[in-house]
Amino acid sequence: MNANGPTTRRDVLHAIGVMGGASVLYQSMTTMGHAAETQFKGPPNLSGARPGASVLVLGAGLAGMLAAYELGKAGYKVQILEYNMRPGGRNWSIYGGDTVTELGGATQQIGFAKGNYLNPGPWRIPYHHRTILHYCKAFGVALEPFIQLNQQALVHSSKAFGGKPQRYRELAADWDGNVAELLGKAIDNKGLDSAMTPEDGDKLKVALREWGFLDKNMKYTRGDKASKRRGYDRAAGGGVDGAPIPSTPFAFKDVVDSKIWAVIAQHMDEDRQMTMFQPVGGMGMIGKAFGRQVEGKVRYGAKVTKIDQSGGAVTVTYTDVASGAVQTAKADYCVCTIPLGILSQIELDASTGLKAAIAAVPYSNSVKIGLEMKSRYWEEDDEEIYGGISFTDRPISMISYPSTGLHSAGPAVILGAYTFGPASYKFAGMTPDARVAEALEQGSVFHPGKYKENFTAGASWAWSRSPFTLGCCAQWNEDTRKEHYQTLVKVDDRIVLAGEHASYIGCWMEGALLSSLDAITRLHKRALEA
Amino acid sequence: MNANGPTTRRDVLHAIGVMGGASVLYQSMTTMGHAAETQFKGPPNLSGARPGASVLVLGAGLAGMLAAYELGKAGYKVQILEYNMRPGGRNWSIYGGDTVTELGGATQQIGFAKGNYLNPGPWRIPYHHRTILHYCKAFGVALEPFIQLNQQALVHSSKAFGGKPQRYRELAADWDGNVAELLGKAIDNKGLDSAMTPEDGDKLKVALREWGFLDKNMKYTRGDKASKRRGYDRAAGGGVDGAPIPSTPFAFKDVVDSKIWAVIAQHMDEDRQMTMFQPVGGMGMIGKAFGRQVEGKVRYGAKVTKIDQSGGAVTVTYTDVASGAVQTAKADYCVCTIPLGILSQIELDASTGLKAAIAAVPYSNSVKIGLEMKSRYWEEDDEEIYGGISFTDRPISMISYPSTGLHSAGPAVILGAYTFGPASYKFAGMTPDARVAEALEQGSVFHPGKYKENFTAGASWAWSRSPFTLGCCAQWNEDTRKEHYQTLVKVDDRIVLAGEHASYIGCWMEGALLSSLDAITRLHKRALEA
Repeated sequence: MNANGPTTRRDVLHAIGVMGGASVLYQSMTTMGHAAETQFKGPPNLSGARPGASVLVLGAGLAGMLAAYELGKAGYKVQILEYNMRPGGRNWSIYGGDTVTELGGATQQIGFAKGNYLNPGPWRIPYHHRTILHYCKAFGVALEPFIQLNQQALVHSSKAFGGKPQRYRELAADWDGNVAELLGKAIDNKGLDSAMTPEDGDKLKVALREWGFLDKNMKYTRGDKASKRRGYDRAAGGGVDGAPIPSTPFAFKDVVDSKIWAVIAQHMDEDRQMTMFQPVGGMGMIGKAFGRQVEGKVRYGAKVTKIDQSGGAVTVTYTDVASGAVQTAKADYCVCTIPLGILSQIELDASTGLKAAIAAVPYSNSVKIGLEMKSRYWEEDDEEIYGGISFTDRPISMISYPSTGLHSAGPAVILGAYTFGPASYKFAGMTPDARVAEALEQGSVFHPGKYKENFTAGASWAWSRSPFTLGCCAQWNEDTRKEHYQTLVKVDDRIVLAGEHASYIGCWMEGALLSSLDAITRLHKRALEA
Repeated sequence: MNANGPTTRRDVLHAIGVMGGASVLYQSMTTMGHAAETQFKGPPNLSGARPGASVLVLGAGLAGMLAAYELGKAGYKVQILEYNMRPGGRNWSIYGGDTVTELGGATQQIGFAKGNYLNPGPWRIPYHHRTILHYCKAFGVALEPFIQLNQQALVHSSKAFGGKPQRYRELAADWDGNVAELLGKAIDNKGLDSAMTPEDGDKLKVALREWGFLDKNMKYTRGDKASKRRGYDRAAGGGVDGAPIPSTPFAFKDVVDSKIWAVIAQHMDEDRQMTMFQPVGGMGMIGKAFGRQVEGKVRYGAKVTKIDQSGGAVTVTYTDVASGAVQTAKADYCVCTIPLGILSQIELDASTGLKAAIAAVPYSNSVKIGLEMKSRYWEEDDEEIYGGISFTDRPISMISYPSTGLHSAGPAVILGAYTFGPASYKFAGMTPDARVAEALEQGSVFHPGKYKENFTAGASWAWSRSPFTLGCCAQWNEDTRKEHYQTLVKVDDRIVLAGEHASYIGCWMEGALLSSLDAITRLHKRALEA
């Protein structure tokens, strides 16, 4: 801030924020044309920590490690207890050579080639998740583009085209084209006279023609216009046979039945809009980088069994997983990032309200399956698929092609299933081998004759059988938000909860980090007031 | 091919092609569900070349070098004459430290940091350009994703929003949302009863609601639904203030006036659909890689002045650009890739028809301007733009952010102008310094207070002043195609033309390569028949 008053836009906004409160601030930002796409305001200001004050952090996931990192920087004495033998929590990549074990004992020795991986949890980062992007930069995590939208990828519906997958490109072109033609027709039929003037209708028709690749008669039909988007039956070329041959759009009924509109919408959702990122070498590189920042502060293999906050301190009892020895750790305050499904089973000395909140929020399940393939055949010949996602209404829901190493030799790992809801419990109930076999069977609809044939090794993770989370992520609804959310995030004497479950960006790393920053900011305030 | 008959799909198609001709072939491919997206069928089969037969190739652009490479592999004695002192032609990157001179003498010493570059010609490769992708792989050119679509990039129209740029994300969301709402309304108003049954109308409304992010009343309006695509006024966060605040859609009139529909259409055009590529280190890496394949066969600095094909051979007269010495080269055949605007000024011994064809096709102009910036401020703070293109109706037409090195430190080069038509001639008429100043002025509409302020160095290239092309690329129209195209591509006794101008994929490297493969295949046949 300039001594003579606020001079930068940020200063002005800060001044408005201080003077008029949050609602005035957001109104001003909107007026200035900058809708806020993040609540991240930079690393927290935790100045003035009392010398010797200590914080115990439960969980070395991203929320816990960020809390420890920032509190440590501010002068707090910090210790982390972590159940796993590694940092990262759900931020994690399973590599070739790894061994993983789910609840129930199913153990997989991962046969992927060295360096190949499955991201069982998070796998992509939106551009507007500023907190995770900020700390990736700060902690030296190299990022590369994650290819979300690939128009050449496939869309499969058992209810359209006799179950034959079609290109996103063709379906999306035909969807837009038909919508444009129909709306143009409605304008001509005066079906929208109440909604617009004739002049506006004419203007809109010009726009619809260009947007929908319509011909000069406002028809979406076989010809050069539509083919420029959906592709040609014979592509343009060079020399004597260079002239292209147009393609014929699909019947609109089939296009609607393919549910391409839902796939388009998914790509347009703010959380999946281009540009997206992934860390070079696997999502787990983030957990590892955070881990390096809190090195020496983490007690791994520690299973928390009891959290007490009587007597002006927090005392946590935990079991050393390897030896079974019971130990305790003590601090002035506690940041607890343990997932709610596990926390609800731990003896917790907290308000009735907080305990009710913890018990009120169920967790979703998801199973992800990685399938390593000998070669990148999907990039070759007439496939031409470089990254992106092919969607299906089969239980696997999608297969996703690697966004990196494009055009290189194999082997490479396809995400062979990303299951939700009932399908995920069905997959979770199978052996790892059976999951892989089923995923190969279902996914081969996209690449018949190649998919199973090129398979080399599989890996999977069922979050409902994940010992350190007992589920995928917290599932709030309108009612539980109203009744329990503010209680869940409130500092409860000496304890504050953090994690994606304590945010409105559930299931995303960004939610975990923003929750953590908010929690430690308030805990710090509480500590100063003590 | 299997001895017992065709067994693979490719074999079957080849057999059909041989038996029934091209139209049956394409029909079969479509029936089998594989619309051909390329005419590339792999490297050409040029077997049986006569020992000692020779070919003179004019031009070491991609078409010329590919011809020389494949003909050389087939056993022909090949020599290339090239005007420039480097391989690549229009495939070219201008790097920091380079010196470039346009017709008229304007010389630029490029002040970019080492490794930074401007691609004055081609800058992106579509996934379906199989020929260029094939040879990139064959010649070891590393590729990386080119980010074409970035929903966070900006769209500026002087005719909407008082000239204030808006996010593609918000405009595209509001376009789709309003189109969906209007079409839903038209269905309700029975304005489309002639086009669909009530049942189909109901089904379509369900689809429109999801695709257009409409609320349960089929309205596109302020609320959680629309905000999930266009963004929130206050983003979701963690902790006590985690709840998001929805945003308000723009007035549809402004959205239509912004011409976002044209920008969306541009991204949906098959040639600009995701996934796209660029070579690591600049587009010119392709020209260099091709150059290595024909090393020792290229006579650089050779300006062709006369092409004669009397006496059973082709004799080409050229001037050594450095010394002014006049020399000749002789071969049995000639592949001429010299751009038509230059070829029309060379004394050419060919049929009247070919000469008329050469004279009939005008060339477009384009000016590209690179602006190096101290830092990647567009990726920071509230900008969040990682790659992609911001569009404007100002003469610069767009600015494009680097697709690579995302999230790294500066300096980095923005494509600050990609001009067409009259605007390009205006820019071509300016000094390089004036172009850069004008591009900075116009582009600052997107990043006021940062754009000029972060500028470090500029570079530009005006294709109308390019000594080796005299323009950007060939502009065919329906009439010239009909009258001249087949004559232009026909083997004219011992000479055949190749290049993007001899293809239906004008202005693309793919057109140059496919033209070259077709030309040498026919020239080879001609040589065998001789």
